[in-house]
Amino acid sequence: MEVTRKNYKDCLNTVYSAIEEADFLAIDGEFSGISDGPNVSALTNGLDTPEERYTKLKKHSMDFLLFQFGLCTFKYDQAQYITKPFNFYIFPKPFNRTSPDIKFICQSSSIDFLASQGFDFNKVFCHGIPYLNQEEEAQLREQTEERRNQHANGVGTPSFISPSSSKGPAHVPEEHKDFINRVIEKVEALFTNAEKTLDLEPCTGFQRKLIYQTLNWKFPKGLHVETVETEKVRTCFILTSLASCVVMCKIMDVIFCEELNDAVGFSRVIHAISKSGKLVVGHNMLLDVMHTIHQFYCPLPEDLQDFKEVTMCVFPRILDTKLMASTQPFKELITNTSLAELEKQLKESPFKSPQVATAEGFPSYDTAQEQLHEAGYDAYITGLCFISMANYLGSFLTPPKAYISARSKLIEPFFNKLFLMRIIDIPYLNITGPDLQPKRDHVLYVTFPKEWKTSDLYQLFSAFGNIQVSWIDDTSAFVSLSQTDQVQIAMNTSRYAESYRIQTYAEYIQGKQQEKEKLGQTTKTWGEDGWVKPHYRIFCRYPQFLFILLYVWPNFCSRGLRKRSISPVQGEQGSGEPLITDGWSHYSYPDSTGSKKMKTDGV
Amino acid sequence: MEVTRKNYKDCLNTVYSAIEEADFLAIDGEFSGISDGPNVSALTNGLDTPEERYTKLKKHSMDFLLFQFGLCTFKYDQAQYITKPFNFYIFPKPFNRTSPDIKFICQSSSIDFLASQGFDFNKVFCHGIPYLNQEEEAQLREQTEERRNQHANGVGTPSFISPSSSKGPAHVPEEHKDFINRVIEKVEALFTNAEKTLDLEPCTGFQRKLIYQTLNWKFPKGLHVETVETEKVRTCFILTSLASCVVMCKIMDVIFCEELNDAVGFSRVIHAISKSGKLVVGHNMLLDVMHTIHQFYCPLPEDLQDFKEVTMCVFPRILDTKLMASTQPFKELITNTSLAELEKQLKESPFKSPQVATAEGFPSYDTAQEQLHEAGYDAYITGLCFISMANYLGSFLTPPKAYISARSKLIEPFFNKLFLMRIIDIPYLNITGPDLQPKRDHVLYVTFPKEWKTSDLYQLFSAFGNIQVSWIDDTSAFVSLSQTDQVQIAMNTSRYAESYRIQTYAEYIQGKQQEKEKLGQTTKTWGEDGWVKPHYRIFCRYPQFLFILLYVWPNFCSRGLRKRSISPVQGEQGSGEPLITDGWSHYSYPDSTGSKKMKTDGV
Repeated sequence: MEVTRKNYKDCLNTVYSAIEEADFLAIDGEFSGISDGPNVSALTNGLDTPEERYTKLKKHSMDFLLFQFGLCTFKYDQAQYITKPFNFYIFPKPFNRTSPDIKFICQSSSIDFLASQGFDFNKVFCHGIPYLNQEEEAQLREQTEERRNQHANGVGTPSFISPSSSKGPAHVPEEHKDFINRVIEKVEALFTNAEKTLDLEPCTGFQRKLIYQTLNWKFPKGLHVETVETEKVRTCFILTSLASCVVMCKIMDVIFCEELNDAVGFSRVIHAISKSGKLVVGHNMLLDVMHTIHQFYCPLPEDLQDFKEVTMCVFPRILDTKLMASTQPFKELITNTSLAELEKQLKESPFKSPQVATAEGFPSYDTAQEQLHEAGYDAYITGLCFISMANYLGSFLTPPKAYISARSKLIEPFFNKLFLMRIIDIPYLNITGPDLQPKRDHVLYVTFPKEWKTSDLYQLFSAFGNIQVSWIDDTSAFVSLSQTDQVQIAMNTSRYAESYRIQTYAEYIQGKQQEKEKLGQTTKTWGEDGWVKPHYRIFCRYPQFLFILLYVWPNFCSRGLRKRSISPVQGEQGSGEPLITDGWSHYSYPDSTGSKKMKTDGV
Repeated sequence: MEVTRKNYKDCLNTVYSAIEEADFLAIDGEFSGISDGPNVSALTNGLDTPEERYTKLKKHSMDFLLFQFGLCTFKYDQAQYITKPFNFYIFPKPFNRTSPDIKFICQSSSIDFLASQGFDFNKVFCHGIPYLNQEEEAQLREQTEERRNQHANGVGTPSFISPSSSKGPAHVPEEHKDFINRVIEKVEALFTNAEKTLDLEPCTGFQRKLIYQTLNWKFPKGLHVETVETEKVRTCFILTSLASCVVMCKIMDVIFCEELNDAVGFSRVIHAISKSGKLVVGHNMLLDVMHTIHQFYCPLPEDLQDFKEVTMCVFPRILDTKLMASTQPFKELITNTSLAELEKQLKESPFKSPQVATAEGFPSYDTAQEQLHEAGYDAYITGLCFISMANYLGSFLTPPKAYISARSKLIEPFFNKLFLMRIIDIPYLNITGPDLQPKRDHVLYVTFPKEWKTSDLYQLFSAFGNIQVSWIDDTSAFVSLSQTDQVQIAMNTSRYAESYRIQTYAEYIQGKQQEKEKLGQTTKTWGEDGWVKPHYRIFCRYPQFLFILLYVWPNFCSRGLRKRSISPVQGEQGSGEPLITDGWSHYSYPDSTGSKKMKTDGV
């Protein structure tokens, strides 16, 4: 179901009940770009630590706009899943003149890619549903309360007060006199007839100024004059005589509440998903999660641990199908984990296509006619992939089970772990516990002149067999040797080199740590004092703290250009090969027992 | 005429000849936003100096995208003007994988405004014409030259070289063997049949890698393998056997040249306008000029004087109709200089609607059905306004003349002066000479706590009659008194104030100057050494220096996010009132003699 600003309010209850009745939800986002800084390969270094990766994505991907959000609900009923797919178009249309005027970045390559997939930009920009984050919502709520009180007290607040206007009649140029006189006549008629409000004809800014000045002088404090933004023009007026103030207040109460709800807009859908506590499934979903929190809740925290805590509040149970497909027992069976390929492979033996039917009143998707990169479709096939893989796990039971529910213990090992793109030895970000810390004894940190290319590194290390190069920037890279015992030999041979320099990974990390400590000593942050830095976990118990925090902790609430994010599916596009199946990278995923233990440790 | 990527090449000659035959050209741009920093009122302080205004616009408006460019050519023929309006859609579609991936900012309010005017974003993003600036063009020319030479020497350069690939056959997983074998068969057939190239079926990234590895091993250096980006997928191949190399080179020469022209794209239209030396008319065109130079020529220079020199090279003769309408003898007759209002007023006495006809084959605009904010339409009515005003000047001649050409001495006083929005006492930026330096003896610079509002300032200065407040930021503003002799009294009364501080304008400027000098001493730039800083004027004589400079002068060629600009017409929207007609601001524009003198001084 396509949902835009036009039909959004009519659809809301349908969305709520779909979430309420669902066994699990699948989501997907489309974004206006991927990286506003380094190129994608620098953004995803193969030997990033989870902290480094989070920091990079936060810095270089959050200024983009999540402008299409796919939600597909899955409800198990009589041996089949009933699906309700929604495709939301999202745009931060300014709510009024004082509301935030969001700026977001577009990346030409991403826009061009979406355009080639038939993406409808007009639907986004002309009819996208607005939204507010928690801070903006709270601010607007406060403003609304203030306006309501003013109305209740009969205090009209004209939007425009010229300090000199009440001193005498405004000078009305000859050519505008007729227009202004017509306005005054209409206003005077207000006091005698039954009408409570009066819409004036559209006019220019100059004429509006004249109206305000003349009315302020003629009816000092006796009128509420307001500029109302309509679809086409911003220069209409509503005038209300004070005589009808009580009626007005009641009307206004309703209007204010409606306005607030309209402004919160799409965020209400995310709140409903969050409150439901249902399992939320996504494919390569780290950036979807980051964007969703950033756009509809609050700016992302500096610290990875804080991010994990916020994530658990917003999405108490998440599952990443790309991680699931790259993990035992699927890893051996699935050669390409990109969403489109995964969906195809899961139709073939030993997997089974799940039995699904689209709920009545919803347009049904046909997986034979791929509509990839429409968020609603991507969410739909992500859900299908999850079902196929979950059901496959049932075949290991004795007796085998053909249907595994979203609440089954069998899928718990995959909960709350988000796939990490292109990190060689850390397959996932563990949201509910400490991250894996693989040994990197075979890794060297190499610095060199910026003219060097990958082939220079291959040449340099040609004596050490196969190597793997992970570029950091123009003048440095990690070089992984295939055998750890050759590290010392490489170090020894490089001792007298002038053009390049080699450190072990341990030395590199130590150096970075020292740098960080040095920096910490000079710019001690609030958090380090141990008494102001809030624990994000508090949000779970007292959600209102999420808002209060935004004012208390300035670091956290970084202003300026609002930050946005990336399409992971786009990122996959170029290199469909499975990245964790390298020949000699023998790291294997923890089995389900191990994961469960870690999860228990973490919580 | 709507021009997109689809019909662009077919239209190019039509555009060239329209420019060639025209008496004058009118232009207009639509942008993805206005200001990425302060709000618009802070961006356009009423007492900015021209340097300050330029610096602000450069800093806060150039990251937006000029995505629609209107050009309307006007040719006088048999007592009427023949018009050819063009409406170009522009988008920096990446040319290939190594070409710049432009990021640009969108401002929600601007996008929303254009959406409400029926702007077609799909046309921009799906079919916009690409472009390159001078530096990018030169780089691509170099690359093309390199590739051409490689082809001429018969050296194939596969896009992907795996250093290990030639050591032995690639390991092809079972499920891909059929596919790879089919590829090898087709390639072997190349050597025996007459075909010169071979398109392979689309495949995944992993399969592509396998193909490259296998072919590199099977046919070492005997094949040119290339990935070609087609509209839909990036995974096709073209293979060429070396046997047909001579034919290939010739084909490639043509292809390369065509590719380069395609990539330079819309910039060719701007080059044609520039080379024509024709009078270019715009309405409130400072930002149009800045964006055009920035997007299609080079990043804007730091210094206002350098900007003026570049502008004169790109647009040797420009005229701003908003400035013309705000200047004698039009100032007294025209109450509202916004484009739409101006166009209406110039249809009424004492002005005359010009005789115009749309050239055959061009869709004609109807000014009764306003299509404002479509760049082509705005350019068209800007041209009409210019003609009406120019012809009106003819009525002062003895005997009066009904038609005044674009080459008439009568309009020369308006040449090369760009309207400055909302500056109280400097109506224009003088491109070919020094700017006006009005006395600001009646202006005070006030700093105060950030809680203060305009009303606090009015209260503070209530004893001094009418004042005018120009906000600088949260804690400072200029306050203009109506009488200069009260400045000293205001200064005296404020002597012991604690919460606020007052300086005269002269003191403020002096302080700023000292700050600048202090800064200059610590961070001496190349330019200040007097031997490296180039003169932009050199471009006029040797355009190639424009490119060389970009490498020589690093300050000038700031990298990172490319800078873009603003819709002046949008900016006007909110406040249609004529801004230079304030009651007590008695500054009057220099008459034509004065301007001419200044122009002569400048050149």
